[in-house]
Amino acid sequence: MSLKVGLIGYGTIGKRVADAIMLQKDMELVGVTGHTYNYKMEVAKMKGIKIFAMSDKDEFAQICSTSTRDCIVPEGDVNNLLDEADIVVDCTPKKVGKENKEKYYLPRNMKAIFQGGEKHETAGVSFVAQCNYDEALGKNYVRVVSCNTTGLCRTLHPIEKHYGIDSVHATMVRRAADPWDIYHGPINAIVPVLELPSHHGPDVQTVLHNVNIFTTAMSVPTTIMHMHSLTVDMKKEASAEDILDLWKKTTRVRVVRNAEKVRSTAEIMEMAKDLDRIRGDMPEICVWEEGIGVKGKKLFYLQAIHQESDVVLENIDAIRAATGFKDGNKSIQMTNESMKVNGF
Amino acid sequence: MSLKVGLIGYGTIGKRVADAIMLQKDMELVGVTGHTYNYKMEVAKMKGIKIFAMSDKDEFAQICSTSTRDCIVPEGDVNNLLDEADIVVDCTPKKVGKENKEKYYLPRNMKAIFQGGEKHETAGVSFVAQCNYDEALGKNYVRVVSCNTTGLCRTLHPIEKHYGIDSVHATMVRRAADPWDIYHGPINAIVPVLELPSHHGPDVQTVLHNVNIFTTAMSVPTTIMHMHSLTVDMKKEASAEDILDLWKKTTRVRVVRNAEKVRSTAEIMEMAKDLDRIRGDMPEICVWEEGIGVKGKKLFYLQAIHQESDVVLENIDAIRAATGFKDGNKSIQMTNESMKVNGF
Amino acid sequence: MSLKVGLIGYGTIGKRVADAIMLQKDMELVGVTGHTYNYKMEVAKMKGIKIFAMSDKDEFAQICSTSTRDCIVPEGDVNNLLDEADIVVDCTPKKVGKENKEKYYLPRNMKAIFQGGEKHETAGVSFVAQCNYDEALGKNYVRVVSCNTTGLCRTLHPIEKHYGIDSVHATMVRRAADPWDIYHGPINAIVPVLELPSHHGPDVQTVLHNVNIFTTAMSVPTTIMHMHSLTVDMKKEASAEDILDLWKKTTRVRVVRNAEKVRSTAEIMEMAKDLDRIRGDMPEICVWEEGIGVKGKKLFYLQAIHQESDVVLENIDAIRAATGFKDGNKSIQMTNESMKVNGF
Amino acid sequence: MSLKVGLIGYGTIGKRVADAIMLQKDMELVGVTGHTYNYKMEVAKMKGIKIFAMSDKDEFAQICSTSTRDCIVPEGDVNNLLDEADIVVDCTPKKVGKENKEKYYLPRNMKAIFQGGEKHETAGVSFVAQCNYDEALGKNYVRVVSCNTTGLCRTLHPIEKHYGIDSVHATMVRRAADPWDIYHGPINAIVPVLELPSHHGPDVQTVLHNVNIFTTAMSVPTTIMHMHSLTVDMKKEASAEDILDLWKKTTRVRVVRNAEKVRSTAEIMEMAKDLDRIRGDMPEICVWEEGIGVKGKKLFYLQAIHQESDVVLENIDAIRAATGFKDGNKSIQMTNESMKVNGF
Repeated sequence: MSLKVGLIGYGTIGKRVADAIMLQKDMELVGVTGHTYNYKMEVAKMKGIKIFAMSDKDEFAQICSTSTRDCIVPEGDVNNLLDEADIVVDCTPKKVGKENKEKYYLPRNMKAIFQGGEKHETAGVSFVAQCNYDEALGKNYVRVVSCNTTGLCRTLHPIEKHYGIDSVHATMVRRAADPWDIYHGPINAIVPVLELPSHHGPDVQTVLHNVNIFTTAMSVPTTIMHMHSLTVDMKKEASAEDILDLWKKTTRVRVVRNAEKVRSTAEIMEMAKDLDRIRGDMPEICVWEEGIGVKGKKLFYLQAIHQESDVVLENIDAIRAATGFKDGNKSIQMTNESMKVNGF
Repeated sequence: MSLKVGLIGYGTIGKRVADAIMLQKDMELVGVTGHTYNYKMEVAKMKGIKIFAMSDKDEFAQICSTSTRDCIVPEGDVNNLLDEADIVVDCTPKKVGKENKEKYYLPRNMKAIFQGGEKHETAGVSFVAQCNYDEALGKNYVRVVSCNTTGLCRTLHPIEKHYGIDSVHATMVRRAADPWDIYHGPINAIVPVLELPSHHGPDVQTVLHNVNIFTTAMSVPTTIMHMHSLTVDMKKEASAEDILDLWKKTTRVRVVRNAEKVRSTAEIMEMAKDLDRIRGDMPEICVWEEGIGVKGKKLFYLQAIHQESDVVLENIDAIRAATGFKDGNKSIQMTNESMKVNGF
Repeated sequence: MSLKVGLIGYGTIGKRVADAIMLQKDMELVGVTGHTYNYKMEVAKMKGIKIFAMSDKDEFAQICSTSTRDCIVPEGDVNNLLDEADIVVDCTPKKVGKENKEKYYLPRNMKAIFQGGEKHETAGVSFVAQCNYDEALGKNYVRVVSCNTTGLCRTLHPIEKHYGIDSVHATMVRRAADPWDIYHGPINAIVPVLELPSHHGPDVQTVLHNVNIFTTAMSVPTTIMHMHSLTVDMKKEASAEDILDLWKKTTRVRVVRNAEKVRSTAEIMEMAKDLDRIRGDMPEICVWEEGIGVKGKKLFYLQAIHQESDVVLENIDAIRAATGFKDGNKSIQMTNESMKVNGF
Repeated sequence: MSLKVGLIGYGTIGKRVADAIMLQKDMELVGVTGHTYNYKMEVAKMKGIKIFAMSDKDEFAQICSTSTRDCIVPEGDVNNLLDEADIVVDCTPKKVGKENKEKYYLPRNMKAIFQGGEKHETAGVSFVAQCNYDEALGKNYVRVVSCNTTGLCRTLHPIEKHYGIDSVHATMVRRAADPWDIYHGPINAIVPVLELPSHHGPDVQTVLHNVNIFTTAMSVPTTIMHMHSLTVDMKKEASAEDILDLWKKTTRVRVVRNAEKVRSTAEIMEMAKDLDRIRGDMPEICVWEEGIGVKGKKLFYLQAIHQESDVVLENIDAIRAATGFKDGNKSIQMTNESMKVNGF
């Protein structure tokens, strides 16, 4: 019998998680919440997704455009949605998840998956499937970490396991806005995060508890992917080939190659579109075969992160972990297969 | 029995036309040509598309990376591909189509579809399916016009038919490079085409023979869509509602709405990705419901063109027209349906 | 005896007008207002400009950084500034000028110059020096129109005078944010103004009362200049050379040339920096010699507008006009000379 | 008696060095070379700079536009320029300097200053004035290192001297094209340099011979400044305040402050324009007061580099060093004063 999943917050991540849930054989999407009328609501309706109002049913009998010509009649309100669900995925903006937990999920004693915008404490467990699936097993609340933290964990985890890590520094060059977002700049500048080291390092430690990591962050005028430059002081020596072999065997890490003319974040996303996945997403963390360097025990590498999609996989696995599905590797394989990830 | 189609030039347009051919019930893709090793070739191979070398078979026994580790063994050369094909679609860069015509298609007396980079004279017929399908019927050579010309023809054609056109001026604000293209700028400038009126006007007249049109063009630092600003001096008065109704009934024109929060080219492409078409393409010309203005007989409107995909539809219809499929409307409908265009 | 000028609002335009006032032999800058601590205030202090608090002297004894380490002690408040001034230039953001008029200038019966963000009605006279200097003569309130309107007026005015204008359409391709502004996007999109025709046309008519003009506007991801594409239906025929000759004789219009490798807005601004004016500004409206086209009575041209500086000249002339300096041409010449404009 | 300096290559760096030479009391600019007609030549002529043809006088009697309407008559050819000069600054593109050395400077036994595009071996001495002025004293050939290397040397040198350096890693986030350059992308992507560690590290060691430095580089779609993220393993502990104090006393390093609302490369360049230096340049390396972090002996910081101007200062000092001016500090002070650098 399939698991009934409710989804709160139908934005950049939420709409992807909704589609991913619909692709799982062991899950069923009860519906999603909406609170403003827009094209995302119209497309959801077209896809046959049930829409619930993120407020009282009476007040929001309709989700309408401000110009009021167009409306969507929701199936009910958020409580109706939660009534039908076994578990909920909360994809609302930063801090709203915590409010929803207190208002809706705690009183109902309902399991919930949160996103990286929430604090670790809100869930108690921070999660990257291939690193610490078991920590989330049977838990009421699980927090999928941010796209950047997920990316750092996926590539650092095997290095730590095989060669040991003394310390890591990552410079995170972030896309300043998502592709649809016309509101945020900069258009022609680099904007540093003036907190050194930045808060991203400690966030990695909520998953990889023993990795000594420092981070520096900045935003640049691009919309498609983040880029990380990493230096790792390893405990044991390894060659660039050793590291490459390790990542080739690591799930949800994709080795891309300049030899194939994948030279930039733009060509990664073009390749992703060619691969015919939903929305042309690239949920794997991409490392360049030609972008791995070793000097003694120092490892240097570059990785690209598709901020819109990498955590979608984690949300699916977190649902299984929280609801007691014991085999983490099996869950990862099921999710990968459904999303055409890593050779499927 | 299905039509065997060969494809020469597997780039931005070529790879899309190849996928579109594979979606047609009355067509079969014989294969595509390649001449450098890259991710597009690897993805084609993964999709089961036969690859032929764009040179002598002996010389190009393999299509290899310059770092020579990776190769693709082609099925044969371009002549082998053409031997098996009933018709060929040439998606090579500007001027190469003409060379290919003389070297390959003319000697074989083979039907060929060319792109807008070629001159009108190379084909003799320039083509936008919904405007002049019949002109291409049974012709040996048909030229699908450029993305910009296609966009202008699709929205102007019904205006001309219903209200008549005295003259048109279009300012074409062009994306400076395709999304994958990291080589071309500008990064922070507007670059005018210093030819006024520009050559785009006469190109429209190769399809809409009687429309008196002038054009001005410039490039801006964006990769996703062109935008056209048009002023039309109509022969008869029409209201903005009349024009809107006309376009709602026009195939391959999509009315987008600010009311749905589609406010920019970015949100159009985001919506296209949500619609789950291949590569997140938007082959329809997009006009804003709220972006139509009328003052007396003067009509003002804005349209957005997805430069990578609008002409893909035309290529499919041109194949049918050239090979004698008589019913243009039926062809358009078949193509639309296969590509999920306009409500399908 | 020199005219004492106060300046309210020390932002993008205000700081330039302040510097320009200091360059005039017949003017003296009393001081400027500030209300937040930032680098602009520090530079003003370094330049010896007196700073006044935009609030009560007691409340704002200091203009301090929110981190409170750094402060500037103002000379007094806005009332102290106005006490010493003969006339005020108000460079505050949209609508604040109107509030300031009612709160400060009207009660004091003080002459004031406003910017294009205010409505025409706030001043009663809208102003482009070379078009309607005399209209502003001796007036209490004068509104310098926006950078875009100023640009349209400067190049259209001589066309109207010499050849007559039936109608004009301008597509205004606007820089989405100023160079310093890291807050506004889009980063990779074109954002249309969904009002057709847009409000810019009627604004031109506040200066060129009889020009029948329609406008369409959009924003693009660049920070340095606006670009306008114009089509003019002239009453009399003129050749491209005639128009070029006309503009060569028109003040504050600069003919730039592709022959000199000035091919884009980027190269215009690079040339401006080479010319060693303050801030590398380009207050002249730039038209391309190679970007003028004529078909019968239809004229097509392209112009580039430096949004940060073109209106600075107008502010200086407006001060003279409002205070009764009768000779408009002489004022224009004095301003040009001080700012190294047009051959000085 | 003043030193006669010739300048070869009047591009982005060359035109700035020419202006800087003209500002020195102990130097005189003989002239510059040109080989294509453009606005830079026209502005040089307007500034009274003598122009020489970069070829035989007879062949290049004129430097003309390809459209041939406009020409500049040079004073002579490159040999005439060198005849009058005591020393030459070569600002030609990569590798041309080496050719010029062999063709012109060696045969004449003429002292020459080269730029960072040339290899270290071409000059034998690589130069950052405040790090190794004495190494260049009296040398025939001196190489001013690249903008990036200059930036790294200026801030690392005092750290090395006061606290010692075990190792450094720098991630260099580079502006992809200069402000005037409309030809190079990317428009919306991050392009990594797939060489790890990159060649920039060894280049630093041509100046700071004992610093163990590794570098990673990438390009991003901005035109105005590079940004470096550094991690330094120091030999001795130091607090963030210690480091800040050190840099406040370091010439050609400028501490910028978020407290003053200098939050990005855009606001740095806006402040530079307000400071009214030629072209709005910022030749100092900028570090953020709020962007220095220390954890034990690990130092993290961010710096911004104005790629067009930082090395201009070094060229002036290199002229003095090569011609035997013994007091490096005095030279630095003279240069700073003339260019309004560091409080002058």
